[in-house]
Amino acid sequence: MSQIPTERDVLKMMETLSNWGRWGADDQLGTMNFITPRERLRAASLVRDGVPVSCSRPISSEISADTSFQPLRFMVDSGEGRDTATPARQLERRGASEFIGMVFHGYTITHVDTPAHYFWNGRIYNGRSCNLITSREGAQVEAVDLLKEGVVSRGILLDVATLKGRWLESGEGVMPDDLDAAEQAAGVRVEPGDILLIRTGYYARRRAQGPRHPLKDGSPAAHVACMPWFRERGIAMLGTDTHNDVTPVPYPNLGNAVHVVGLVAMGLWLIDNANLEEVAQACAARRRWEFMLTIAPLVLQNVTGSPVNPIALF
Amino acid sequence: MSQIPTERDVLKMMETLSNWGRWGADDQLGTMNFITPRERLRAASLVRDGVPVSCSRPISSEISADTSFQPLRFMVDSGEGRDTATPARQLERRGASEFIGMVFHGYTITHVDTPAHYFWNGRIYNGRSCNLITSREGAQVEAVDLLKEGVVSRGILLDVATLKGRWLESGEGVMPDDLDAAEQAAGVRVEPGDILLIRTGYYARRRAQGPRHPLKDGSPAAHVACMPWFRERGIAMLGTDTHNDVTPVPYPNLGNAVHVVGLVAMGLWLIDNANLEEVAQACAARRRWEFMLTIAPLVLQNVTGSPVNPIALF
Amino acid sequence: MSQIPTERDVLKMMETLSNWGRWGADDQLGTMNFITPRERLRAASLVRDGVPVSCSRPISSEISADTSFQPLRFMVDSGEGRDTATPARQLERRGASEFIGMVFHGYTITHVDTPAHYFWNGRIYNGRSCNLITSREGAQVEAVDLLKEGVVSRGILLDVATLKGRWLESGEGVMPDDLDAAEQAAGVRVEPGDILLIRTGYYARRRAQGPRHPLKDGSPAAHVACMPWFRERGIAMLGTDTHNDVTPVPYPNLGNAVHVVGLVAMGLWLIDNANLEEVAQACAARRRWEFMLTIAPLVLQNVTGSPVNPIALF
Amino acid sequence: MSQIPTERDVLKMMETLSNWGRWGADDQLGTMNFITPRERLRAASLVRDGVPVSCSRPISSEISADTSFQPLRFMVDSGEGRDTATPARQLERRGASEFIGMVFHGYTITHVDTPAHYFWNGRIYNGRSCNLITSREGAQVEAVDLLKEGVVSRGILLDVATLKGRWLESGEGVMPDDLDAAEQAAGVRVEPGDILLIRTGYYARRRAQGPRHPLKDGSPAAHVACMPWFRERGIAMLGTDTHNDVTPVPYPNLGNAVHVVGLVAMGLWLIDNANLEEVAQACAARRRWEFMLTIAPLVLQNVTGSPVNPIALF
Repeated sequence: MSQIPTERDVLKMMETLSNWGRWGADDQLGTMNFITPRERLRAASLVRDGVPVSCSRPISSEISADTSFQPLRFMVDSGEGRDTATPARQLERRGASEFIGMVFHGYTITHVDTPAHYFWNGRIYNGRSCNLITSREGAQVEAVDLLKEGVVSRGILLDVATLKGRWLESGEGVMPDDLDAAEQAAGVRVEPGDILLIRTGYYARRRAQGPRHPLKDGSPAAHVACMPWFRERGIAMLGTDTHNDVTPVPYPNLGNAVHVVGLVAMGLWLIDNANLEEVAQACAARRRWEFMLTIAPLVLQNVTGSPVNPIALF
Repeated sequence: MSQIPTERDVLKMMETLSNWGRWGADDQLGTMNFITPRERLRAASLVRDGVPVSCSRPISSEISADTSFQPLRFMVDSGEGRDTATPARQLERRGASEFIGMVFHGYTITHVDTPAHYFWNGRIYNGRSCNLITSREGAQVEAVDLLKEGVVSRGILLDVATLKGRWLESGEGVMPDDLDAAEQAAGVRVEPGDILLIRTGYYARRRAQGPRHPLKDGSPAAHVACMPWFRERGIAMLGTDTHNDVTPVPYPNLGNAVHVVGLVAMGLWLIDNANLEEVAQACAARRRWEFMLTIAPLVLQNVTGSPVNPIALF
Repeated sequence: MSQIPTERDVLKMMETLSNWGRWGADDQLGTMNFITPRERLRAASLVRDGVPVSCSRPISSEISADTSFQPLRFMVDSGEGRDTATPARQLERRGASEFIGMVFHGYTITHVDTPAHYFWNGRIYNGRSCNLITSREGAQVEAVDLLKEGVVSRGILLDVATLKGRWLESGEGVMPDDLDAAEQAAGVRVEPGDILLIRTGYYARRRAQGPRHPLKDGSPAAHVACMPWFRERGIAMLGTDTHNDVTPVPYPNLGNAVHVVGLVAMGLWLIDNANLEEVAQACAARRRWEFMLTIAPLVLQNVTGSPVNPIALF
Repeated sequence: MSQIPTERDVLKMMETLSNWGRWGADDQLGTMNFITPRERLRAASLVRDGVPVSCSRPISSEISADTSFQPLRFMVDSGEGRDTATPARQLERRGASEFIGMVFHGYTITHVDTPAHYFWNGRIYNGRSCNLITSREGAQVEAVDLLKEGVVSRGILLDVATLKGRWLESGEGVMPDDLDAAEQAAGVRVEPGDILLIRTGYYARRRAQGPRHPLKDGSPAAHVACMPWFRERGIAMLGTDTHNDVTPVPYPNLGNAVHVVGLVAMGLWLIDNANLEEVAQACAARRRWEFMLTIAPLVLQNVTGSPVNPIALF
């Protein structure tokens, strides 16, 4: 059965699981290096039905219990009264538009984390200084426009919640055993370049019971004990239906351990706050837990991530 | 040779090309109805090389000559000094994050327009009142989360600029003749459910000569004369490397005629301000102007569009 | 004793208390017309001690129970690590700055309402159309830059909460009787051009018990029954420590009746969400409830109000 | 005649003009300590006419040549169509409101700088570490809410532009000689606690000739050579009609020398980008260059300044 690593074990992972230098001293792509044309062709070959399913939560401007920063939506122009306005006015102002704004990192918006999102001992992935992520200039390396061509690969859903017959509890980590069991149940094997989606049921619970704040009320996630498993398999991205770290954090001196080991040591790109409900249903209905997955981050310069709408195509 | 329609001709299009009621009185999807699993399967079947190409411009927070509203990027937290900070501080603040904000409609950001973006005589697509697009609530119909499952279909690039051997001039419209010629040159035929991308070279010119403001300095686009062609072929989306209307506007009493006829009468979804440079090169290199195209709008509630990064997969 | 007016009584006020046309058909200043050099001189003559007291609440970027829109504060540049950075970097980036953003109307920020903030039957103060307050252009009349020279006049505090020995309850209105009693207790008489501040104790309660949402939990305010009193006295502005209307609203078909009668009919400028705690203490300590009051709205173009920090000078 | 100090001279000022420790090790107020009730009473005693004059520029959301960050104004709700809407809708949405946002530091908005706005050798005023001004928390010391009670003191205008009969040129500094001459011409003597306003004519030029960018096109300001003069007189604040440093900067290794010596060494609060046109006219008309001046910064927490509308009262 899976062992809970000690804090010292986790600290060792920073070296034993490190991908620093693996793809050269200049590398910024980290685990994205696992995705090549071959993986994309395999992904495309999985399409059977032509049915797309979003893995994104909606983006709302409402404040809820898990809001850190309220997303903004303000109309720059609206349609109100344009039916009764003068013809000249109707002609001049015939379009609606809006300002949108958000802090996508947080607990509600489905987004990609680049490796620059986290640092440890003053370093980001591949040994660069955290001083490259500045207030004024933003992320001078490891910005999300590295992914401007998008991420296309095989997606695999490991539906741990369904396997356990319940959503995971606050503070409960998905363990390597769970991954093995879910793999077996799904009849798939996670391989290099795959985008691994792990369903804990956290978002199902949010839908059923309403929002709660992960820092106050806790949340499940993949446990950092899974990191060796992730590295061995060579996943390109890890996405879950939580913010990707168990809270309360099990290692107070490490904080969000999956972020630290994953982003900093491994250069493992993350998808936080996914919605895996509909994709889980689509998989279950087909008894297939693999699919073509396309993630198209906005081409944001100097930004440590992007809101995304990952599309699984069955 | 293609005729330039009179203003009266264009006004007639509001009726002759109308899709109001075509998919039922409740329809909000408009030309998205043309995309079914069959079209997505065809799109996936086009993948040969596993090479993805972005059709998005970068999103920068700089002000340039074509900026209407400056995109925002502010760090909520940065990495500066986190190498020399106390261990407690390093632990407490080990992540960088940012606020991003933008008015994506405009002339610089690659984005989708929903039919709710435009109104005519007080109506939006399918006859609804423009009063449904309000300052406070935003787009109460035809919001971009209608596309939450993404748009996956065959993309076809008609590279009019290459065909003409020059970028199109300010005020110059792509005419139906040009579409026919480009189709013939490409050896493809645009069919129902396709996403049609038309390259005028406007963005190539921006790269070469720097930004200019479409309203002050003019821009090319597909001419409204093409609308019957678009409707006949049943395209699901129209994307160009401009803001999708010739300026100066040829019909002062109509304004942006492609937007009016396309969005309002036809329910034709648009992609404005695409970057078609790399995709044109990828097509030319392969002598194939069709590809799998995936567009994954953010799941924004009550918003009349979304910034997007359309991914062509060859 | 003060009578609670019926809804019909209040509707009559729209005519009987109207200031439309009183200062000419072009007037936008409304009750600001009551302040002339004479009133400012009187205000200055009240200064005895040289002690200034703010009537503003702090502006925080935290979300609280009475937040409608979260105020924003993002650093554009910070000082972090500028001690250990290279000399070149220290020289280049030697200043901190920030973006601030807010929806100041609401329940937490001390702000001025211009008459354009409210409309009734399609009209704003002095009979102009509400269509002059547009999504795109903002307030094309009655914008807060009308007050660019500031508001300087005598401030009078009527401390109803202290008089009653308790803070007013949710839904409880300050009545004309209360004003008379407070005036008498204070030994002052409110006269034309005065800025009247009424303390209900609502903000004291917020400090003591934490924030509550005025729409969910109710709030006190001056009752619309006071409007004839205000008009008779010729006050230039009304400020309270609430959002200036009793909730739950006593007249469901009228909504925020003080706003409607005050802003629309009377052109009476309001100060919402003031902090009257320290000024009340300063008054009590001196046994004087009149002082020089200076309000300096930001010179915002096309905006229906401004956050302000009203300064009482004793 | 005034000497231009060498760079070494300016560096010496960091010690010779330092106010570190002058008001105690815990002091954050710097030169604000010069304003006491006595200075405020003197200010109030200067009021003769009851005429207020703004020293603020308007805040516009337009992009101009001197825009670094575009100010934002978006309507949260507007009045459009509320005349023709249903009665229920009219009742529900009877108010207009807006979001405003800005980076007030810059070259266009009249604002206060707190001493925390600048650092030198890793220190801010009174020797604190620049690491107290963080991305996440903002200004943990020296924030503008220190001035929550406002700044009320005697304002003195030294109208150097009028004295010279021309606006100062790009790169031209106001020298101590100029201050002496302007003082003499005005018949006033700057004394401790005064708020000194210096008019270079830069804003007059902007009005006449349109905006130019201070970094590209240069700007005048008080020369750092004036710092000993300012310290000797004990001014509480320095305000000019420029961004308060000559550009191009005369000391490339020092950058904005007035900011460095003033904010960091002296703890001298600044008003950047004032509009001194109307106040200069009001002074000239009265042949009096002293007046009561009230500055009421917003009570912003953790922010290194505030947009302000300084009100001179004659």
